[in-house]
Amino acid sequence: MADKIFRVNMSDQSCLVEEVPAEWLGLGGRGLTSTIVATEVEPTCHALGVHNKLIFAPGLLSGTPAANSGRLSCGAKSPLTGTIKEANSGGTSSQMLAKLGVKALIIEGKPEDGKWYGLRVSALGVTIYEEKELIGKGNFAVVEAVEKRLGGGIGVITIGPAGEMRMSAANISVKDPDGKLRSCGRGGLGAVMGSKGIKYIAVEPTDNKVAIARPEQFKEANRAFAKSLIDNPISKALGQYGTNVLVNIINEAGALPTRNFTGGQFEGHEKISGETMHDTILERGGKPQHNCHPGCVIKCSQIYNDAGKQYKTSGFEYESIWALGADCCVANLDDIAEADHLLDDLGLDTIETSVAFGVAMEAGVLNFGDGTGVCRILREEIGAGTPLGRIIGNGAGSVGRAFGITRVPVVKNQAIPAYDPRAIKGIGVTYATSTMGADHTMGYTIATNILGVGGSLDPLSKEGQVELSRNLQIATAAIDSTGMCLFVAFAALDDPNCLPALVDMINARFDINLTAGDVTNLGMKILKTERAFNIAAGFTNKDDRLPEFFSEEPLPPHNVVWDIDGKTIDSFWNF
Amino acid sequence: MADKIFRVNMSDQSCLVEEVPAEWLGLGGRGLTSTIVATEVEPTCHALGVHNKLIFAPGLLSGTPAANSGRLSCGAKSPLTGTIKEANSGGTSSQMLAKLGVKALIIEGKPEDGKWYGLRVSALGVTIYEEKELIGKGNFAVVEAVEKRLGGGIGVITIGPAGEMRMSAANISVKDPDGKLRSCGRGGLGAVMGSKGIKYIAVEPTDNKVAIARPEQFKEANRAFAKSLIDNPISKALGQYGTNVLVNIINEAGALPTRNFTGGQFEGHEKISGETMHDTILERGGKPQHNCHPGCVIKCSQIYNDAGKQYKTSGFEYESIWALGADCCVANLDDIAEADHLLDDLGLDTIETSVAFGVAMEAGVLNFGDGTGVCRILREEIGAGTPLGRIIGNGAGSVGRAFGITRVPVVKNQAIPAYDPRAIKGIGVTYATSTMGADHTMGYTIATNILGVGGSLDPLSKEGQVELSRNLQIATAAIDSTGMCLFVAFAALDDPNCLPALVDMINARFDINLTAGDVTNLGMKILKTERAFNIAAGFTNKDDRLPEFFSEEPLPPHNVVWDIDGKTIDSFWNF
Repeated sequence: MADKIFRVNMSDQSCLVEEVPAEWLGLGGRGLTSTIVATEVEPTCHALGVHNKLIFAPGLLSGTPAANSGRLSCGAKSPLTGTIKEANSGGTSSQMLAKLGVKALIIEGKPEDGKWYGLRVSALGVTIYEEKELIGKGNFAVVEAVEKRLGGGIGVITIGPAGEMRMSAANISVKDPDGKLRSCGRGGLGAVMGSKGIKYIAVEPTDNKVAIARPEQFKEANRAFAKSLIDNPISKALGQYGTNVLVNIINEAGALPTRNFTGGQFEGHEKISGETMHDTILERGGKPQHNCHPGCVIKCSQIYNDAGKQYKTSGFEYESIWALGADCCVANLDDIAEADHLLDDLGLDTIETSVAFGVAMEAGVLNFGDGTGVCRILREEIGAGTPLGRIIGNGAGSVGRAFGITRVPVVKNQAIPAYDPRAIKGIGVTYATSTMGADHTMGYTIATNILGVGGSLDPLSKEGQVELSRNLQIATAAIDSTGMCLFVAFAALDDPNCLPALVDMINARFDINLTAGDVTNLGMKILKTERAFNIAAGFTNKDDRLPEFFSEEPLPPHNVVWDIDGKTIDSFWNF
Repeated sequence: MADKIFRVNMSDQSCLVEEVPAEWLGLGGRGLTSTIVATEVEPTCHALGVHNKLIFAPGLLSGTPAANSGRLSCGAKSPLTGTIKEANSGGTSSQMLAKLGVKALIIEGKPEDGKWYGLRVSALGVTIYEEKELIGKGNFAVVEAVEKRLGGGIGVITIGPAGEMRMSAANISVKDPDGKLRSCGRGGLGAVMGSKGIKYIAVEPTDNKVAIARPEQFKEANRAFAKSLIDNPISKALGQYGTNVLVNIINEAGALPTRNFTGGQFEGHEKISGETMHDTILERGGKPQHNCHPGCVIKCSQIYNDAGKQYKTSGFEYESIWALGADCCVANLDDIAEADHLLDDLGLDTIETSVAFGVAMEAGVLNFGDGTGVCRILREEIGAGTPLGRIIGNGAGSVGRAFGITRVPVVKNQAIPAYDPRAIKGIGVTYATSTMGADHTMGYTIATNILGVGGSLDPLSKEGQVELSRNLQIATAAIDSTGMCLFVAFAALDDPNCLPALVDMINARFDINLTAGDVTNLGMKILKTERAFNIAAGFTNKDDRLPEFFSEEPLPPHNVVWDIDGKTIDSFWNF
């Protein structure tokens, strides 16, 4: 059974199942979502209007037994940044959609009646139901209710109240193997789903298997690939302490943005570190290792229980812990876990919202360190859609504009994540040049600047950072098209067997003969497609800049400023 | 005594008095503020940061006896639009500054101590005082207090609480001859003044006279010029009914934006019309004619009393009455007058804030028609700086983003004023191409599209609108440099004696020999200077567009959409 394009029009609640155009056949994940957005969406359209489209696409290897291949890409024009946007997530839906033969699910139009709907995807197409019961409900309740209606094996893609209220920090959540949540976090895609009147998308389980053209070659390649991942030392650290292993590392590097980006070290870092988290999880009978989708061999997720040994949150990530912790000066993992849980339930990007809280603290809305206040505002203001809730739920830039603050860490209106660009200059190039606003996952130079993966490059020097970011952004665009978790990059950068095995799997799946060079070309093509969309939307190289305070306020302890000039940044696009 | 540049640095509260650079000698008003901003302000800087500069400049003829020459230009990078910005106002300060020999007052830097200051301008320079008593006070109280301290003849330029809170709709108010207020309304310049820690600028009275090189020629030209203004039929209508004469005219044209730009006629138009206002003013012992600065012969301002015959507001303008009236569906002049008074006292642009209320009404924050609710929110939310107050006080775009609304009438984030571009297409070209966001005063095509001044051009046709807007924008940029009120344009367009008399006055003042062609060249040069600043700030022709709803939602009663394409709009710049 050949894959199809499932196209839903919410203006009249219709669905078509279409053949895949020839030029999209070799694409998946981000490569496909970005190509469809660039082809079908008017770049200057209102992101919450009838002309934007929301696209879900499994990766090229999603649904196969390939290790770590269960990422789901979601793309649209972003209401937060105004740029093209792709965000991807674990969970079970990517593999399920792939097995149903869904090459991409394109959602267009907008209901004029103001009603809410639920979608149900089967191999035959998409059925659309009016939804009333779940409107206003949090993501956990949606998953529970949809499972109750349609069975525990159902896949669920959902938005919380934040997405319903079309907040620019709203994410799209995807049910994980334990019925908990993973998120397509960044860029406000949940608001786009909300603007289309869709509360959730249910994905039917199936016994179908994804066809593999050369099964033996695939099996062998997958074995080598999985071994490469398992043996990698970074994979091991991620499996032990989760992504939160980074708190102590980045603090030590003096690059842990603290107190709304006024310092690079947080005195409470030990209290929120991966090591502390690991011990706390063990003490309370949580799970220090957990996979966000079937087939993951790294298992960087975990289950964090509260003091009463009850489940509190899972997928308790470094970025969330940094943002609520160091950036907001909350030195208490339980407060952070509570906020993380609330953010997941409301359906908000933890980075965007927490950085927004940091700016709100600078504005005097609440005090730095007030974790209880954060949770109160999440529940009573954002959850209720009050004016303050909307200001914060629309992200860091929104808070800065509302209160007239000038120290606002955003690029293209998207919050800068957990690595200060003054002290790790490579990641600053990524923030500046990313086609999607500030986003560490677009080109994770921390690997080479800090972790010594793929070589090493002094984080405080200007030299070589553009090349580093460029190479990683190209590779990332390709990896994001395969359905692979980005954490395969550590093995791919350091183990010569890893990338060939990945390419072999793609070749075996589709009976083709790509080379590593083809993969690089794919990455370059994706970046250029995304860049062209942004230019057509009105972006220029003036948007590829960090906020001026990074150039003017030295960051302790290194007392460094951002000093890569515009011309050098612009050379990023010389490829 | 030659004019000087007065330069204040708020970072260290210093002041320098400098010679005027040769290339600025022939400039005044907007021509000078825009040239200084373009020369000295980094286009990508944060508008509320240390690198923006706030510039005040009298016009070339300000301070002379020339009729209607008392406009004060204020320029900066706008925190609302991100573009270059000039807004001008009547009041007494322009003529007083000119008599003190102030070619321009440039305010740069930003106090690091968070303190507030008052400035006092004399012929010798600027003295800077710390200010405590007036912080948080409304504009009327500031004027009263400064007059009490320094005498009734003092000139006052002030910001209200909105400017202190750095709201993007904050204006800068200028004391008028009766101790009331006129405003540099648009683009949030009050927030820039607030960001520099300045609550007010006092301008000392003086017996100095502005030097006129050829006094007899000047006197004769001024006589002809004033006669031309007085005899003009539009001047007469403005003197009788104020600018609010337009409510019935624009309603009749089907272009009066109503209920957040969903209709072109307001059923309550008679209740808020200039004719009704005129009768009400007479009944209540107000003044139907009033001048906003000494030497005005048109007198379109008026003093509007409340039902108890007490002063309520003055300068009760069409734009304010339309925005609160038709756009918010408030069919009650007293509610509108109360809101106008509050807006003046808080220091908010009536257009931006009232259009923001229209969007808030669409979002369900309050009901259309709820004039009492508008006044309550002005007092209790905006005045108190609550989150809702900040959302609305940051303008229409802010409200749209906060509540996820797509029908948001802004260009470059500045609210569209009182003429629907679907039904008067020339003004749509002005909104789209203006260097400062949507602003009717940049190129007032209503003159020709509706009033039959300077010829006539079908407002519903696409033909000729770009040329019309271009010619008017060029002429306006020049007029805005003279210190002249824009309403001299009606006479200038229709009376062949008017413009030569104006040019003669400039020549007589400076002992030069400009031609009408030189004036046109000046206007073109100013527009290109402003455009270059915007391009360097990252603007492109994609920003020269109206919101998509204008192209898609037909406007009753003509049921027309905005249909001038991008390429045609871009041809505006072919000069």
